[in-house]
Amino acid sequence: MRSQFEKQLTSLNVKLLKMGAMVQDIIEVSVQALTNQDLETAKAIYEMDDKIDELELQIENECMKLLALQQPLARDLRVIGTIMKIITDLERMGDHAVNIAKTTLKIGNEPLIKPLIDIPRMAKLSEDMVRKSLDAFLKADVKLAEEVAHDDDEVDEIYEAIYTELIEMMIKDPKIVKQATNLLFIGRYLERIADHSTNIGERVIYMVTGDRVEIN
Amino acid sequence: MRSQFEKQLTSLNVKLLKMGAMVQDIIEVSVQALTNQDLETAKAIYEMDDKIDELELQIENECMKLLALQQPLARDLRVIGTIMKIITDLERMGDHAVNIAKTTLKIGNEPLIKPLIDIPRMAKLSEDMVRKSLDAFLKADVKLAEEVAHDDDEVDEIYEAIYTELIEMMIKDPKIVKQATNLLFIGRYLERIADHSTNIGERVIYMVTGDRVEIN
Repeated sequence: MRSQFEKQLTSLNVKLLKMGAMVQDIIEVSVQALTNQDLETAKAIYEMDDKIDELELQIENECMKLLALQQPLARDLRVIGTIMKIITDLERMGDHAVNIAKTTLKIGNEPLIKPLIDIPRMAKLSEDMVRKSLDAFLKADVKLAEEVAHDDDEVDEIYEAIYTELIEMMIKDPKIVKQATNLLFIGRYLERIADHSTNIGERVIYMVTGDRVEIN
Repeated sequence: MRSQFEKQLTSLNVKLLKMGAMVQDIIEVSVQALTNQDLETAKAIYEMDDKIDELELQIENECMKLLALQQPLARDLRVIGTIMKIITDLERMGDHAVNIAKTTLKIGNEPLIKPLIDIPRMAKLSEDMVRKSLDAFLKADVKLAEEVAHDDDEVDEIYEAIYTELIEMMIKDPKIVKQATNLLFIGRYLERIADHSTNIGERVIYMVTGDRVEIN
């Protein structure tokens, strides 16, 4: 027979996965809105983010209640602490997607200075990292958590390439400075989104091993 | 006679204030390193950040233990939850200071393209916001928490001014694109640092009133 604590933990995990799926969605949709210059969709990102924020609060409240009512032991305590940290990272990813949408609205309908290939690649990688990091949490899988860091290296490399390319483009053609800077910021937001998955990976390692690592 | 819970809460608050002071320091020192182009100090920021991270973990562990052992009631539960959120925001501010230091190292010894006046102003305001937001927490003072949001508006305005100025400078003189972009990022990091204090203010309002607000 499962304990009350375990039952509630399962319910928490289900909500956590739902939040993760919402975050994957918001990353994807925000970058789609950018590449398609679909300003209506960019505006809809705000609502998507509100829903993520609501779910974060709900999960947080459940964690607090669980802690207060069930008096979990050391190991369970660490699991709850990890969930509380994970939801903060997920919530921040949503905020960065909002930043992407805001920047997309700034760019508006002006023609894009380059075909966007690397930015959607970064988005795809970042989405996979969200899924993988949550998977690592559910399975308490240190190896999988470490993999997230390797994916992050790839995201960082793409960002560096975008950075170099855009700086060169600006130097050659100062007229594009404004949009190039906006695209640079979007690259940076995606790079930060990926960092948050790395944070989750690090927390999972801490949860399992008790070691505080920086895998970046 | 004070309860065991209250005693432990006082000890937590002392640590929280210490963490706040460390974060104020790291903001100040990171921007000083930039304005003085003092690369040795910029490198020392990493260690300052490690100490902030350690203290965060320590406070977090104490919160978790307090929750598990003392079974606090609804109101106390909310206070602990607030502390756990505050330390995450403070920790992220430290990360942004590290980003400022990294960017300072990238700029290196090349002559600055403009005298830095607005960036130190943003730093000063951000430091004050940290202090004020923690003060609002300790006093459970909604009005003070709301003031933090107004300060944030001022930081945002300075950032917008920096943004406009640097974009114009880049358009006029593409040779400076690289450094101007770096300064733009630093402005953005400071703007994010100020946002984190606003987050703290919002959490304080939530703690006191139970209302989830976005004061920005």
